[in-house]
Amino acid sequence: MAKELKGLTKRSENYSQWYNELVVKADLAEQSAVRGCMVIKPYGYAIWEKIQRQLDDMFKETGHVNAYFPLLIPKSFLSREAEHVEGFAKECAVVTHYRLKNAADGSGLIVDPAAKLEEELIIRPTSETIIWSTYKNWIHSYRDLPILCNQWANVFRWEMRTRLFLRTAEFLWQEGHTAHATREEAEEEAKKMLNVYSDFAENFMAMPVVKGVKSASERFAGALETYTIEAMMQDGKALQSGTSHFLGQNFAKAFDVQFVNKNNEMEYVWATSWGVSTRLMGALIMTHSDDNGLVLPPKLAPFQVVIVPIYKNEEQLNAINEKVAGIMAKLKAVGISMKYDNSDNKRPGFKFADYELRGVPVRLVMGARDLENNTMEIMRRDTLEKETVSCDNIENYVKDLLDDIQTNIFKKAFDFREAHTITVDSYDEFKEKIEEGGFILAHWDGTPETEERIKEETKATIRCIPLDGDTTPGVCMVTGKPSARRVIFARAY
Amino acid sequence: MAKELKGLTKRSENYSQWYNELVVKADLAEQSAVRGCMVIKPYGYAIWEKIQRQLDDMFKETGHVNAYFPLLIPKSFLSREAEHVEGFAKECAVVTHYRLKNAADGSGLIVDPAAKLEEELIIRPTSETIIWSTYKNWIHSYRDLPILCNQWANVFRWEMRTRLFLRTAEFLWQEGHTAHATREEAEEEAKKMLNVYSDFAENFMAMPVVKGVKSASERFAGALETYTIEAMMQDGKALQSGTSHFLGQNFAKAFDVQFVNKNNEMEYVWATSWGVSTRLMGALIMTHSDDNGLVLPPKLAPFQVVIVPIYKNEEQLNAINEKVAGIMAKLKAVGISMKYDNSDNKRPGFKFADYELRGVPVRLVMGARDLENNTMEIMRRDTLEKETVSCDNIENYVKDLLDDIQTNIFKKAFDFREAHTITVDSYDEFKEKIEEGGFILAHWDGTPETEERIKEETKATIRCIPLDGDTTPGVCMVTGKPSARRVIFARAY
Repeated sequence: MAKELKGLTKRSENYSQWYNELVVKADLAEQSAVRGCMVIKPYGYAIWEKIQRQLDDMFKETGHVNAYFPLLIPKSFLSREAEHVEGFAKECAVVTHYRLKNAADGSGLIVDPAAKLEEELIIRPTSETIIWSTYKNWIHSYRDLPILCNQWANVFRWEMRTRLFLRTAEFLWQEGHTAHATREEAEEEAKKMLNVYSDFAENFMAMPVVKGVKSASERFAGALETYTIEAMMQDGKALQSGTSHFLGQNFAKAFDVQFVNKNNEMEYVWATSWGVSTRLMGALIMTHSDDNGLVLPPKLAPFQVVIVPIYKNEEQLNAINEKVAGIMAKLKAVGISMKYDNSDNKRPGFKFADYELRGVPVRLVMGARDLENNTMEIMRRDTLEKETVSCDNIENYVKDLLDDIQTNIFKKAFDFREAHTITVDSYDEFKEKIEEGGFILAHWDGTPETEERIKEETKATIRCIPLDGDTTPGVCMVTGKPSARRVIFARAY
Repeated sequence: MAKELKGLTKRSENYSQWYNELVVKADLAEQSAVRGCMVIKPYGYAIWEKIQRQLDDMFKETGHVNAYFPLLIPKSFLSREAEHVEGFAKECAVVTHYRLKNAADGSGLIVDPAAKLEEELIIRPTSETIIWSTYKNWIHSYRDLPILCNQWANVFRWEMRTRLFLRTAEFLWQEGHTAHATREEAEEEAKKMLNVYSDFAENFMAMPVVKGVKSASERFAGALETYTIEAMMQDGKALQSGTSHFLGQNFAKAFDVQFVNKNNEMEYVWATSWGVSTRLMGALIMTHSDDNGLVLPPKLAPFQVVIVPIYKNEEQLNAINEKVAGIMAKLKAVGISMKYDNSDNKRPGFKFADYELRGVPVRLVMGARDLENNTMEIMRRDTLEKETVSCDNIENYVKDLLDDIQTNIFKKAFDFREAHTITVDSYDEFKEKIEEGGFILAHWDGTPETEERIKEETKATIRCIPLDGDTTPGVCMVTGKPSARRVIFARAY
């Protein structure tokens, strides 16, 4: 077993430590020299690129275009929307000067006091304010609407406790910002993008999600409604994986963005914003991976197949190289991505453990015996099952297997979630059951006070009010007051 | 003629103003509320995405991978490499605080003095320092080399005079940072990437470039050698379009990055870095566009063909819609991207001018007569020539035409450059000719003093010492001292 793998903590021992180690050992990311900022390493970034490409295609299919807005936001912009500033002011990186100089006493490089900005600039924690200040110039009439812009960007929130991918000061994300002529159209857009996220999570990340609405206290700062997709990690905790906000006319009012509607009246523009971030990387890792390392869905793996030769001498290697070249061409022809690792400075056992750690969905091995028999040993990463298959038609065998892995890991995660989702009617039972992790469907009276009390006493939050599922009314487990329907509680990342 | 177009200044009247207006009128970019920072609008960003995608493919084909490093750099990192800090300290955006708060006197949002950073952070002007501080942990042995990383990112340089795309405080770029075991390999890498840039510029942007080496005073801060591609704009000025740096061991020494080489000795790592930015958008615009607006190379146009119907009534429109649907399917089948604009709130004349302004390479028009005759009117944007062609086999006609436009605009730009490149032997003639713009091939004694004098007296700089071309020695036009070969002088952006 490879040296790197030996050290991996088991999930059952310490789930949190398992995650932290795995991210580093699988070469996905590492801490940088700058507090709270990560370095995304090539293997990790390759997964993020697959995520980006797929989401970008889905955004474009739904009529969106990309644009780019400034990194820095004037401090005063942030104050325009009262709830928004309340939500972000405490974690802003502030640019105050625009020049360094050598200290007169020769002590080194200092900030030049003469280069102080008149108004401080904030590194964007999110871009509603700078974008709506721009939209003011773009929107005059209903004919200028809708605007359906997305931006791929880095954002910065000065988080005190950070974890790679899950919560970092700087992170990468996309943020859609749309402008509409009617309330209905904006609400529809917010829901449409929630569905895009849910489709992406389930069909590409193989990660089942619950679609729902956030309670008022969990809403995005400045939104009238926040839609969310919530996933369950293997420790039973919830991870908010994407949000889509119906912003009403809040930002249009804050930046005075009005348009002439079809009735020739001035009206404030309706808005949405929606985003997913490199946090999805954390969700992806925690949903599927195991004690041997990463398990990646074939649709997002940097390469889907690794081929390893086993040989005793140069002659055998040459023969295997030649045979494998033909197989690679066949795999490529059906759209499978792969890596052939015939490097001679590592032993096969090391390679096996390393590619398991990196979550490559399928491993093909060819030894001298295989060469003779026109076979290969095939292993699927999700179950670690091995078998020997003929090289004839192997490309279709692998293709089907990749599909099967994609389906299987989704089903496994789905079954896990179902097995860890329970219905609870009393607060005593809730307090007991929440210790076991998982989602709890319970009745709640709809007030922020009760929500806050539950959070303080149990560390559980309302993840969402599901859009689907049982809508039978009942009574709040805490106060006994009427409840419109059960909501989902969980402890969360 | 469309309203927007009417106002476009002619190149011959004021080239600089023509450019500034065109960028805005063609919806490519605009100034933002933040000094020196631009908003890249969807149409402009779509071109940048094409540039990104193509370059990224070329980087990957040459063995590079993408990664992501932090936006912020500790101030002290910048000081480690003496020339580097000299080059960048004067234009750094400095983050000094990490929190805002409400002023006690109710006057609004202020920077929280309690949230002052111990060490200030700089928004990256370029990432050599943060990356080499990271590489120190990645590199121990020659087996860890080469590292061939690229990063797509935003960077920030506090420029005093800014122009959209050409010089902005924030800009988007890619920066490759490679690490090698030998000097030869690093030098080869720097040259290889120069060739990638030149290939991209000529074959995708249709922009001829001269490949060369920078004189010492024009080198990147911290490099031993800077390679460059230089293009000529229509006003005869040079535009540096991409640079590739051989960094020697400077950054490895600054960050103490040593490795055990094959002889089991400790050695500093050899480095390169290379980048192109959104400045390429400026180069693209200025190389090909004319008094009617943008001219885009078909390989980078957001859509290559626009189809406009001309109709008198709903019935005609329906018939044209149906016919066009079939033609679009045929165009799509041969890989042509297009837009069908049958919107009824603008007249055909407005649409024509608008798509000319936006530089769509080919326009197809179908009217009632065309419908009857199974023809379309086709116009090529580069020459504005029109003809009527049969709808049969139109997809191949358009495909060939797009190839022809790509070739033609390259040739036009190439011929322009050739016509504006002259050889000069006396400094008097130089001073006269430099006023006319263009490239001047002249002898120079190789000293920074002479270079500086020429710059002060004529505003011309040495764009590069060409890698190809005439290498006959001579004497410096200014000092009469020996010159190894002619170099290229020009005024530059």
